[in-house]
Amino acid sequence: MKIAIINGPNLNLVGVREPEVYGGQSLDAYLQELVKAYGNVEFELLQSNHEGELVDAIQRVGFSVDGIVLNAGAYTHTSVALADALRSVTSPAIEVHISNVHAREEFRHRSFIAAACRGVIAGFGLDSYRLAVEAIIKWATP
Amino acid sequence: MKIAIINGPNLNLVGVREPEVYGGQSLDAYLQELVKAYGNVEFELLQSNHEGELVDAIQRVGFSVDGIVLNAGAYTHTSVALADALRSVTSPAIEVHISNVHAREEFRHRSFIAAACRGVIAGFGLDSYRLAVEAIIKWATP
Amino acid sequence: MKIAIINGPNLNLVGVREPEVYGGQSLDAYLQELVKAYGNVEFELLQSNHEGELVDAIQRVGFSVDGIVLNAGAYTHTSVALADALRSVTSPAIEVHISNVHAREEFRHRSFIAAACRGVIAGFGLDSYRLAVEAIIKWATP
Amino acid sequence: MKIAIINGPNLNLVGVREPEVYGGQSLDAYLQELVKAYGNVEFELLQSNHEGELVDAIQRVGFSVDGIVLNAGAYTHTSVALADALRSVTSPAIEVHISNVHAREEFRHRSFIAAACRGVIAGFGLDSYRLAVEAIIKWATP
Amino acid sequence: MKIAIINGPNLNLVGVREPEVYGGQSLDAYLQELVKAYGNVEFELLQSNHEGELVDAIQRVGFSVDGIVLNAGAYTHTSVALADALRSVTSPAIEVHISNVHAREEFRHRSFIAAACRGVIAGFGLDSYRLAVEAIIKWATP
Amino acid sequence: MKIAIINGPNLNLVGVREPEVYGGQSLDAYLQELVKAYGNVEFELLQSNHEGELVDAIQRVGFSVDGIVLNAGAYTHTSVALADALRSVTSPAIEVHISNVHAREEFRHRSFIAAACRGVIAGFGLDSYRLAVEAIIKWATP
Amino acid sequence: MKIAIINGPNLNLVGVREPEVYGGQSLDAYLQELVKAYGNVEFELLQSNHEGELVDAIQRVGFSVDGIVLNAGAYTHTSVALADALRSVTSPAIEVHISNVHAREEFRHRSFIAAACRGVIAGFGLDSYRLAVEAIIKWATP
Amino acid sequence: MKIAIINGPNLNLVGVREPEVYGGQSLDAYLQELVKAYGNVEFELLQSNHEGELVDAIQRVGFSVDGIVLNAGAYTHTSVALADALRSVTSPAIEVHISNVHAREEFRHRSFIAAACRGVIAGFGLDSYRLAVEAIIKWATP
Amino acid sequence: MKIAIINGPNLNLVGVREPEVYGGQSLDAYLQELVKAYGNVEFELLQSNHEGELVDAIQRVGFSVDGIVLNAGAYTHTSVALADALRSVTSPAIEVHISNVHAREEFRHRSFIAAACRGVIAGFGLDSYRLAVEAIIKWATP
Amino acid sequence: MKIAIINGPNLNLVGVREPEVYGGQSLDAYLQELVKAYGNVEFELLQSNHEGELVDAIQRVGFSVDGIVLNAGAYTHTSVALADALRSVTSPAIEVHISNVHAREEFRHRSFIAAACRGVIAGFGLDSYRLAVEAIIKWATP
Amino acid sequence: MKIAIINGPNLNLVGVREPEVYGGQSLDAYLQELVKAYGNVEFELLQSNHEGELVDAIQRVGFSVDGIVLNAGAYTHTSVALADALRSVTSPAIEVHISNVHAREEFRHRSFIAAACRGVIAGFGLDSYRLAVEAIIKWATP
Amino acid sequence: MKIAIINGPNLNLVGVREPEVYGGQSLDAYLQELVKAYGNVEFELLQSNHEGELVDAIQRVGFSVDGIVLNAGAYTHTSVALADALRSVTSPAIEVHISNVHAREEFRHRSFIAAACRGVIAGFGLDSYRLAVEAIIKWATP
Repeated sequence: MKIAIINGPNLNLVGVREPEVYGGQSLDAYLQELVKAYGNVEFELLQSNHEGELVDAIQRVGFSVDGIVLNAGAYTHTSVALADALRSVTSPAIEVHISNVHAREEFRHRSFIAAACRGVIAGFGLDSYRLAVEAIIKWATP
Repeated sequence: MKIAIINGPNLNLVGVREPEVYGGQSLDAYLQELVKAYGNVEFELLQSNHEGELVDAIQRVGFSVDGIVLNAGAYTHTSVALADALRSVTSPAIEVHISNVHAREEFRHRSFIAAACRGVIAGFGLDSYRLAVEAIIKWATP
Repeated sequence: MKIAIINGPNLNLVGVREPEVYGGQSLDAYLQELVKAYGNVEFELLQSNHEGELVDAIQRVGFSVDGIVLNAGAYTHTSVALADALRSVTSPAIEVHISNVHAREEFRHRSFIAAACRGVIAGFGLDSYRLAVEAIIKWATP
Repeated sequence: MKIAIINGPNLNLVGVREPEVYGGQSLDAYLQELVKAYGNVEFELLQSNHEGELVDAIQRVGFSVDGIVLNAGAYTHTSVALADALRSVTSPAIEVHISNVHAREEFRHRSFIAAACRGVIAGFGLDSYRLAVEAIIKWATP
Repeated sequence: MKIAIINGPNLNLVGVREPEVYGGQSLDAYLQELVKAYGNVEFELLQSNHEGELVDAIQRVGFSVDGIVLNAGAYTHTSVALADALRSVTSPAIEVHISNVHAREEFRHRSFIAAACRGVIAGFGLDSYRLAVEAIIKWATP
Repeated sequence: MKIAIINGPNLNLVGVREPEVYGGQSLDAYLQELVKAYGNVEFELLQSNHEGELVDAIQRVGFSVDGIVLNAGAYTHTSVALADALRSVTSPAIEVHISNVHAREEFRHRSFIAAACRGVIAGFGLDSYRLAVEAIIKWATP
Repeated sequence: MKIAIINGPNLNLVGVREPEVYGGQSLDAYLQELVKAYGNVEFELLQSNHEGELVDAIQRVGFSVDGIVLNAGAYTHTSVALADALRSVTSPAIEVHISNVHAREEFRHRSFIAAACRGVIAGFGLDSYRLAVEAIIKWATP
Repeated sequence: MKIAIINGPNLNLVGVREPEVYGGQSLDAYLQELVKAYGNVEFELLQSNHEGELVDAIQRVGFSVDGIVLNAGAYTHTSVALADALRSVTSPAIEVHISNVHAREEFRHRSFIAAACRGVIAGFGLDSYRLAVEAIIKWATP
Repeated sequence: MKIAIINGPNLNLVGVREPEVYGGQSLDAYLQELVKAYGNVEFELLQSNHEGELVDAIQRVGFSVDGIVLNAGAYTHTSVALADALRSVTSPAIEVHISNVHAREEFRHRSFIAAACRGVIAGFGLDSYRLAVEAIIKWATP
Repeated sequence: MKIAIINGPNLNLVGVREPEVYGGQSLDAYLQELVKAYGNVEFELLQSNHEGELVDAIQRVGFSVDGIVLNAGAYTHTSVALADALRSVTSPAIEVHISNVHAREEFRHRSFIAAACRGVIAGFGLDSYRLAVEAIIKWATP
Repeated sequence: MKIAIINGPNLNLVGVREPEVYGGQSLDAYLQELVKAYGNVEFELLQSNHEGELVDAIQRVGFSVDGIVLNAGAYTHTSVALADALRSVTSPAIEVHISNVHAREEFRHRSFIAAACRGVIAGFGLDSYRLAVEAIIKWATP
Repeated sequence: MKIAIINGPNLNLVGVREPEVYGGQSLDAYLQELVKAYGNVEFELLQSNHEGELVDAIQRVGFSVDGIVLNAGAYTHTSVALADALRSVTSPAIEVHISNVHAREEFRHRSFIAAACRGVIAGFGLDSYRLAVEAIIKWATP
C-alpha cells in the first residue's frame, strides 16, 4: 500500500517555532513517527510553499498511490490549479487541516479543493493526518 | 469512556431502502456493529427528524460524554439552534457526514454547525463514524 | 388510488378565524369536502406546525401513496430537511400554496422544496389543492 | 367563457422534433385537443418568438377574456415588459410551465412575470395547460 | 391582564450552568420572581427547544393574552414559521433578547421575527423581560 | 428643429383605460397637443411594444434629429440593445419617465439606458415630455 | 443619577405636525413630562439635525452620565462616526427608536450604532424613552 | 409662488474655478439670473456643505414653499437624513443634478433621495435648475 | 457545406458610419467578400435588431446548416430566448464578437449564449467571422 | 512650504483619555511637536467632528497648500462629500490612519476617500502623520 | 514571424492519459504537428504548472514575438499576476481554451486574463490553437 | 538594523522599459541608491515572479530582520499564502505599493496581505519604499 502526504505553504513552520505548544514536535517529526507506526505502508512525503510544485507532486504520485493526503494550507482557498490536478489523476485524495478552518476567518470557509477530494478531515490537530491514513487503509483494504 | 452518536433528519432511511448499495446494512445495523467493535466505550445512539429533539439530546448528553458525533443531516445547513446547543454544553463535538457535502449543491457547502464543533469528517461513507470515534478516543486518552 | 395531503405550520388557522373571508369554511372543512368529492381516492390528511413531524409524515406515506400534496407553509423557504425527505421517498410530490408566493415578500420567492417536487401550483386559493389532486390522478391513470 | 393561451419563444418546437417523447403530439396538436375537450369555452391560441408580439397579444385579449394562460418561455426570466402588460390589462393570468423550472438552472428560478399573475402552475408536462384551464373555469363560474 | 412569556431553544440552560455569572439565578427562577413582582398580571410561561411547540404555543395564547414576550433564541434568525404564527394571531408581541445580538456574529443581526412584532428589546440581560412586561402594561392600560 | 419622441411597451395604454385619472387624455392625445404647442419644431412620434422596432427607430432618426425623447418603458431596465443603439447614433437622447421610477420596485431603479443618454427626466407625469422638449430646444438653440 | 437623551435628525418634528396622532404632544413635551416623572434623575436633553453636533454631544456627556439614550434617527443607518463616538466614551448607551425599524424599509434594518450600544429598544412609540430610562436606572442602582 | 433652491456640498465651487468651462458664470451667478428671469416667483437660495444645515433648511422652508429644488451633491448617495427630512415636510421636491450621474461611478447611481422626491432631472448642466422651476410652476398653476 | 451567419442589433451600423476605421468596408461588404472567399460553402446571411427574428432565424436554419456563426450583439448579455433557441436546434453554433467584450463594461462579461454554443471567438475585429468559418469547416470535414 | 493637517471625528479624543497608552501625549500635543520639528514648513491644523466643516476646510486650504494630510476617521468609510471636495481642489492629499484599518472590521476596509488622494499611509500610530509630511516635502521639493 | 505558445497547469496531461479520446495524440504531439504545418513561423513552446514560470515566460518572449497564444488553464480564473505580465509586455496575446469554459462551473466563467488579451478563442478542442495562430498571422501580415 | 525589501511579480520590469517615465532609473537602480542612502542599515533585496519563492523568502528573513518591506504586486489581491507566511514569522511587515491601488480597478482594492502587516504605504511612486524604511527605523529605534 502506498500513500502520499503532501503539505502546502507555511506548514514547514508548524511545531518548529512553538515547541511549548506541540511538545517540541514539528510536523516533520510527527510525520516520521506516523511513517514508523504504519510499517506496512509505503509513504511519500512532500512539503512545498510553491503551488506549482504541489501540482507537479500530485501529477507525479497521482497514478500510483492508494491515496493522497493533502493539506494545501492557504492554497485550499485560492487554487483552482490544485483542484484540477486532483481531478486529472486517478488516486483518490483527502483534504486535511490541522485546525478547524470553519471556526476561522470567512475566506477560510471556501475550499476549491474539497469538491475534488473524496473526503475532508479538519480540526484534530496533527491527529488529522493519522485519521486520513486510517481512512485510506479502509478503502484500500478489500 | 462515553460517546454519543446523534443523527438528524432522514438518516434513518440510509441503507434501509437501498441494500444493494450498502450491503444490506442500514445505518442502525452499522452503528450496532460499531458499538460492538468498541466494547470498552459506552455509546448513546439517537436519531430524530425533529430539530428540537436533537437540541434536547445535545443538552442531555452534553455535560457527561467524552465526545458527541453529530451528523445533523439537512439541519447542518439551516440550524443555528443546534450550533447554539453545542456551544452551550461542555462535551466537544465532531460534525460528520457520510457523503462529501462539498461536492454537492451550493447550499450544502455552508455549515452553521462546523464552527461550534472541534472538527469535521466528511465523505468516507459509514466509515466517517468510525473515524470520529477514533478521534474522540485519541482526545480522551491521556 | 392513494393521495396524502400534508400541511405545514399555521395552516390550521386558515379559515378558522376569518369566516367572512372563506365563507365560514376552514381548511379542514374544505379538505373534508375534497375527500368526499373524490370518492374513489383514498386520502391521508395531516397538519403539523413541527418540521420534524412533517418529515416523519413524508417518510411514512412516501413509499405507498400515488402522490403527495405538500403545502409546507413557512418551511417552504427554510427547510432543507423537508426537501431531503421528499428526495428520500418514492412517491412524487406537488408543492402547493394558497396564495401567490411570488407576489409576496422577497424571502418567500425562494423554495427549497420546489426542486424536490415534480411540480408547483400556487395562487388559486383553496382550489390549489383540487388542482393538485387532479394532476396526480392524471399521472396515476394509465 | 373565453380563454387565451399564449406561448412564448421556442415553444413551437415542443413535440415537433421529439415525437417519441410526446407521443407524436406537438404542443399545437395538444392544444387542438384541449380546445375540443372544452367545447363550451372559446379559446384564442397564439405562439410567438417575439417579446413585442406577446405584449401586443396580451393587450389585445386582456380586456375581454376570462383568463390568460401564459407560458412565456425564456421571457419569463428576462421580460419586465410582459409583466407590465399583464398589469396593464384586466383579465387575470396564470403563469404556466411544462417543466419544473425550479429544478433547472439558477437563472430559471427568477420570474418577472409570476408577481403579475394570479397563480403559477409548473412541472406537469402538457397537462399544465389543462390545469390552468380548470383553474380559470373555477374562477369564472359563479 | 394576561401576558405570555415564551422562550426558545437553549434558554433553559441560562443561569443553570453558570451560577457565578447570574447570581445562582436561572432564567426560570428569574421569571418566577418576575411573576411575583407583578401580582396583578396573569402570566403564562413556556420554554421549548422545538420550533413547532413554539408555533403551537403562540397559536394557543395568541388570541387571549394582552401581549407575548418572545425570546425565540436561535430561531429568531432562521424561522419564518414563528413570524407567520405571530402574524396569524391577534395579541401583539415583543421580541426580547438577553444579550445585544447586534454586537455578536453577523448572522445574528437578521431577525425574521422582528417585523412581525410591535417592538424589540435586546441587551439588558434578564432585565429585558421586565422592560417588555412594562411595555405591555403601558399598552394595555387605557 | 427636429425632435423624435419614441415610446416603448405598454405606453400606448396610458390614459386610454383610465380617463378619470388622466382627464380623458391619452398619451397620444397629449403628444398631439404638444406637437401643436411647439409649431416650429418638426416632431416624429413612434410607439412600439417591440424592442427591435425601437432599435430600428433610433437608428432611423438618430443621425438627423436634434434630440430623441425616449420613454423606453420596461425596456429601460432590461435592454442593452437600446442603449447600444443610442450610443451608435449621433443625436443626443433624453430618458423620460411619466412616474418617478425611483419610488417604485427595486428592479426599476436600474437603467441600462440612462448612461447612454445626455440626461434623465422622471416623475412629472405627461409634463415630463414637455420638459424634455424644452431641454432639447435649449441645447439646439445657439 | 444623570441620564442624557440625545435625538437626531427630523425628530424635532415628531408630534409637532400631527397632534391628532400623538395627542397634541410633541417629543419635546413628552420629554419634559418624562423629566418631571423621574424627579431624582438629572437629565440632559439635546436634539440636532447635525451628525457632528451629535458626536460633540456624546463626547461632552459620555464621561459623566450614567447612561445615554440615543435615538439617532436616520444616522442610525449611515453613521460610523456616531458609533465610534459611543465607543470612545465610558458611559453606556441605549439605541432607541419610536417606530419598529425592522418593519420598515430594508435599509433601516442595518444599524451601525447598535453594536456600540449596550442594548436596543424599538417600536414602543414615545414610551421607548421611558423604558430606556428604566433600564439605565436598573443598571445604575447597586 | 415660492420656490426654494437648495444646493449641497462642493456645489459652491461650480463655475468658480473653471470659468472657461461655464462661461465665467458660477452657480451663484447662474441662479441670480434665474431669479431675475422668473420675476413673479419668490426664491429662497441656500448652499451648504453641512448635511445638518441642509436638513434644517428643508424643515424651515418645507411647509410653505410650492416646491423644493434640491441638488444634494454627494449627500444624494449617502444621506438617509435628507430623504427623511423631505418625507417630513409637505412641499414637494425635485432631485436635480448638473451632470448625468448615471454615466459616472457606480456608487453615484444610487440615490437615497429620489424616492422621497416627486421627480428627478439630471444631466442638463445648469439648465437642470430652470427645468425644475418650470416643472414646479406647472404643478402650482391650477 | 452550409453555414449561417446571423448578426444581432446595431451590427448593421458597423463600418457604415466610420469608413476611416474599417477601410470603408461595412460588415455587409466584409461578409460579401467572405462569401466569395469560401466559394464551396453555401452561406445564409441575416441581420436583425429584433430578438424574435433572431430566434426565428435560428429555428429556420438550425436543423440543416453545418454551423451557425452568431454575433448576438447586445442580446448576448440579456437573452435567454436566443440561448434556448440554440439548445433547441441541432446545428452547432459559435458565439462571435468583433471587439474583446471582456475588456469592456462589466455587464458585457456575462453571456447567456456562450453556454449554448460549442465555442467562442472574440476580439479579432471582422476577422472573427473568418476564424469561425474556419472552425466550422474543420468540424464538418471528416 | 505649506501643509494642512485635517483630522475628522473622535480624533480629538486620541491620547486624551489613555495617557498610559500614548505616553501622556494627545494627538494635539503630538502635532504641536511635529510642527516644531519641521520649522520651515507652515502648518494649518484642524479637527472637527462635522463632515461639513471638514469639507469647508478642504475647500479653504485646497488651492494654496502643498499637501493635505487627511485623517477622516469614520467619515473615511461613509463620505462621498469629502472625496468630492478633494477632487474639487488642486492641492494633493494623503489619506492617513493611526491604526491599520485593514486589520479591523470589514466596513473599515472600504474607503471612499482613498481614490481621491495621491496616496495612503496607515498603521504607524501617530508616526503616520510624520511619514505623510515627509512624503509631501519630497513631492514639493524640486 | 515568431509566435509563443504558452500552456499552464495540468495541460501537460491532455491526451496523455486518454488516447482513446484524442486519437492517441497528446497536446505536445499536436503542437509538434502544428509547428510543422506552419513552416515559416518560428514557434516557442512552453508548459509549466508554476504561475511564476508562466510570468517569467511572458516577460521573456513578450517583447519580441508577434503574438502569444496563452492557455493559462486554471490560472485563468485566479491569476492577476499573469494578467499584469501580459499588460507589461508589448506582444499581443490570445487567451485560448480547449473546452468551452462558459459551459462549465460558474467559477470558470471569470477570466482575469481576458481583459489583458486582444482576443479569446475557446471551445474548439486542440483546433483552438490553430485558430489562434491563424489570427496572429492575419495581424502580423501587412 | 536589518531590513528586507521583497518585491513580487512584474516589479522587475518597473523602470526598465520606460526610462522616460522614471528618469532612466529601474526599481533595481532605485533600491541600490536607497541602500547607499541608509548606510547603517543592512538590507536584503529580493524580487521574484513566483508566489512560492516569496513565501520562502519571508520565512527565511522573517525571524531576524527588524522589518519587511513587501510589495507583493498582483499577489496582494490573490495570495492567502503570503499573508499566512507573514503571520507565521516574527518580523513586522509593511505593505507597499508604487501606485495608489485604490484609484485603480475594483479587484485591486482588496488586499489579503494588509491585515497581516503592521501598516500600509501606497501611492508615492518609488518614494513609498523610502517611507517604509523610515517607518521601520522609527519602530526599531528605542
